[in-house]
Amino acid sequence: MIGRHLLADFFEVAPEHLKDLPLLEESLRQAAARCALTPLAPPVLYRFEGGGVTGFILLSESHISIHTYPELGLLAMDVFSCGPANPEAALDVFREALNPGRIWKAIHPRGRDHGG
Amino acid sequence: MIGRHLLADFFEVAPEHLKDLPLLEESLRQAAARCALTPLAPPVLYRFEGGGVTGFILLSESHISIHTYPELGLLAMDVFSCGPANPEAALDVFREALNPGRIWKAIHPRGRDHGG
Repeated sequence: MIGRHLLADFFEVAPEHLKDLPLLEESLRQAAARCALTPLAPPVLYRFEGGGVTGFILLSESHISIHTYPELGLLAMDVFSCGPANPEAALDVFREALNPGRIWKAIHPRGRDHGG
Repeated sequence: MIGRHLLADFFEVAPEHLKDLPLLEESLRQAAARCALTPLAPPVLYRFEGGGVTGFILLSESHISIHTYPELGLLAMDVFSCGPANPEAALDVFREALNPGRIWKAIHPRGRDHGG
């Protein structure tokens, strides 16, 4: 196993948060910092016409990405972290910033022989 | 459900392929094209001192990322595609380029109420 890959969907998020590019950019930075992950470059984000935002931060230890859907009150994120970092800490940063009503998540070990 | 998120680990890949930044960059472009996904910008890739490459392409419909570990013969990729695109087509592009001995994969619907 080389690392863990956390997928999370945040439901029932206030649409204004999901359109707030500065908030989401700062959350990406903070998420990397709280996991003690090392950015290779600043986060990259785009805002779509409808207000949705997509963004990522590339890390020495892999990446964090977010995609928001204000019309659905939804943020979809993933955190792929190699080494001992705990990707749940990145999720906590977004939970605190966005106050979702509900979260779905899944976690996969990566780079492991799954017997396939 | 807003889309599907495919995770795949390629094992037993020739290390020279996993260090080949132009090959990996072109594969990211081709993967997006074969899925009929729309890049928001050219792919972004970094090569580490040990030869490993990390990269992604942001799409109107989400993203494709890759992380390679030449010392392990391993590529870890994920394809998050909103809408009707079939993320398996992106996997096929990398399979053809890298000729892995074995692939592990998992797929998750995203943005669905999972009853959580």
